[in-house]
Amino acid sequence: MRIEFISTGDEVLSGQIVDTNAAWISQYFFHQGREFTRRHTVADDLESLIDIITETSLRADVVIMNGGLGPTSDDLSAEAAAKAMGVPLTLSQEWYDHLVSKYGQFNRTFSESDEKQAWLPQGSEVVDNPIGTACGFSFQFNRARFYFTPGVPSEFKHMVTEQILPDIQQRFTPVKIPTLIKIKTFGISESVLNERLAALSLPQSITLGFRVDFPTVEVKLLSIVQADLAKARERVLAELGEFVLFEGDCSFAQYLQNIILEKGQTLSLAESCTGGLIASELIAVAGSSGYLDSSHVTYSNESKSRLVNVDKTTIANHGAVSIEVAAEMAEGAMLNAGVDFGIAVSGIAGPGGGSEAKPVGTVAFALASKTHTYSQLLFIPRRNRQGIRTVSLYIALDMLRRELLGLDLAAEFGSIERRGYCDTVSC
Amino acid sequence: MRIEFISTGDEVLSGQIVDTNAAWISQYFFHQGREFTRRHTVADDLESLIDIITETSLRADVVIMNGGLGPTSDDLSAEAAAKAMGVPLTLSQEWYDHLVSKYGQFNRTFSESDEKQAWLPQGSEVVDNPIGTACGFSFQFNRARFYFTPGVPSEFKHMVTEQILPDIQQRFTPVKIPTLIKIKTFGISESVLNERLAALSLPQSITLGFRVDFPTVEVKLLSIVQADLAKARERVLAELGEFVLFEGDCSFAQYLQNIILEKGQTLSLAESCTGGLIASELIAVAGSSGYLDSSHVTYSNESKSRLVNVDKTTIANHGAVSIEVAAEMAEGAMLNAGVDFGIAVSGIAGPGGGSEAKPVGTVAFALASKTHTYSQLLFIPRRNRQGIRTVSLYIALDMLRRELLGLDLAAEFGSIERRGYCDTVSC
Repeated sequence: MRIEFISTGDEVLSGQIVDTNAAWISQYFFHQGREFTRRHTVADDLESLIDIITETSLRADVVIMNGGLGPTSDDLSAEAAAKAMGVPLTLSQEWYDHLVSKYGQFNRTFSESDEKQAWLPQGSEVVDNPIGTACGFSFQFNRARFYFTPGVPSEFKHMVTEQILPDIQQRFTPVKIPTLIKIKTFGISESVLNERLAALSLPQSITLGFRVDFPTVEVKLLSIVQADLAKARERVLAELGEFVLFEGDCSFAQYLQNIILEKGQTLSLAESCTGGLIASELIAVAGSSGYLDSSHVTYSNESKSRLVNVDKTTIANHGAVSIEVAAEMAEGAMLNAGVDFGIAVSGIAGPGGGSEAKPVGTVAFALASKTHTYSQLLFIPRRNRQGIRTVSLYIALDMLRRELLGLDLAAEFGSIERRGYCDTVSC
Repeated sequence: MRIEFISTGDEVLSGQIVDTNAAWISQYFFHQGREFTRRHTVADDLESLIDIITETSLRADVVIMNGGLGPTSDDLSAEAAAKAMGVPLTLSQEWYDHLVSKYGQFNRTFSESDEKQAWLPQGSEVVDNPIGTACGFSFQFNRARFYFTPGVPSEFKHMVTEQILPDIQQRFTPVKIPTLIKIKTFGISESVLNERLAALSLPQSITLGFRVDFPTVEVKLLSIVQADLAKARERVLAELGEFVLFEGDCSFAQYLQNIILEKGQTLSLAESCTGGLIASELIAVAGSSGYLDSSHVTYSNESKSRLVNVDKTTIANHGAVSIEVAAEMAEGAMLNAGVDFGIAVSGIAGPGGGSEAKPVGTVAFALASKTHTYSQLLFIPRRNRQGIRTVSLYIALDMLRRELLGLDLAAEFGSIERRGYCDTVSC
């Protein structure tokens, strides 16, 4: 079965807008067992639109067209479809009545350009748009079933999930909908993941996918055979070991929040180079006030002493980026806030501030609990300021994950090098 | 002139990867006075590739093809081009020698699959890739000049800017490169901007564009006529007034940093609902340690008192989200850190925690300086947790901008409602 997608609009074609509708529907269809065979982006002019409608009508079974259904003179999709098929535009009384009642409800005046949205190519069926004012429509032309959809993402997504995909599933030979398993990893690159998982020779029915969300990589296993999927999941988890952060669809912060709230424990942070990034990531999840007391963004040396009691002589002797200072920051945050855990990060995010002994990318981390303080000095190579801060965020949160799950805090993170560490229980 | 772009790759087609290369090159070409007439995304199979190469060769003047040049068996672009033209693949001695020397340099073994990258359609010219191992290549086929490029974004961008665009400019009738002016706005929606700027009837030569980077909207003015551009810029700035944050290409944090460093002033923050977001945004810019001392992420009520001296009775009398508490937070941050300015944010980001008097979206802001403390209680409607926090970030930074530039701190932000304010100079 051949399915094609057409994006219209000069803003998309000129790169003013990234075409997230195209990426979204492709992935959505893929997860429903349907794959696009081609996608197109064309300009907002009548000739281009007629060309692509005609061309795809001869080749595809389904064509989904996105954009150009609004009330302005740039919105030419319906006119182009009518011209391509050689039929007139006719007024859809159904959608006209709907619009009049909708505008009345919101006390908006109903103009001639608004009425334009109810003129559809003769023979079309209305595809309802419960969110906006532009209706979708559908018709058969040559080989292809066409669906015209509005460009506004919320309207587009609603129409695709509620009406278009169900209609396609009904009209064409049904496919089994595959089950999707998501495994979030950290500390291992996409290419190494690819190599290691390819070597597992997973069952034929498994489609293996990766989604990079720097610095994590999500491994996706997709199959219509449940038994294969269970087998594949086990083998992937065994192969990847501690590189696996968690399974499922939520954020890492949400995952950690679920665990720490269940344990009834509390946290405070002391951040230097991450500078509020860790707190902000945790506070992004509703309910974080249940365990997060505060973060001390101690960017200056003076504020490290003032807010989390770092001894000035520790800074003088070891430097602000050291396991000693990080340990005192974590302990100070924990004790001052009266919480169960303190986590601290202090590093050189660059581009300036590096030295031979502590180059840009050197970051000290510490986690303090009532029983011990673990601190480590890591070197994060080949990253810019943003990259170093984002990797540091994940390392800090991974330390919390390991502490909460009772795992060893001394983790391996691929190319990241451990240059020193100390655990107050042992060192 | 007809220019088309082809993205290849199952990951792009199935939506696993958002096609940022396509958006980037479209915008880059647009700013250079060249516009794409069509873009395509096709699967990684030989038949689809041959079809699209043949089809575009008959219609376009320039075709840029992206992806499928690597060493693996999925990389079929060169083979497809050769088959489409009916020519064999031949070894490029030039690129073969280059690869052998490059691999030798990095002590990597040179395998047969690596050699594949030097086999090009007969008659092609090599397009150099100084970053990676897959060379680009170029040839004439039917009407079109074809350029084949690697999928890795850094390699692709380098090839386009350094070699392909210059080659196109040389081969085809030159176009004048337009000048681009960027104006960053806040507090005004894209549709209102569009209406207000359309009503200005700017000179014909001006192309007006918008880029939404929530919650800011960048207005872009593009023209090859300098005098028109200067006129348009003035009229747009006059029309938009205080909705304009700044002009140019940098981030808002970078813009603010330049001003505050020049004035030799310093800052500390107290953040509740933004929770480190403001600090993180400022610290993202290298050199921020020159003015930012610290942020107090006082998420719990207790930490508001402990870290920035908020009186417990102020919280009891007015609630944590109030102009009174925000004012004390800002003053506490300023005084404790010994800096020139304190900025504080405390709000209800939701989805829980709202009340009738203070619904979700109610956020208190304060800016304290040596001469006054200005505080305001705003209501940010119709936003989720992330939206409320991000809008709050921009309001807080805009207050700093207004203070630094000596503007009135009581700004209007479109649909955002002011529900209370106080300036210690006047209230």
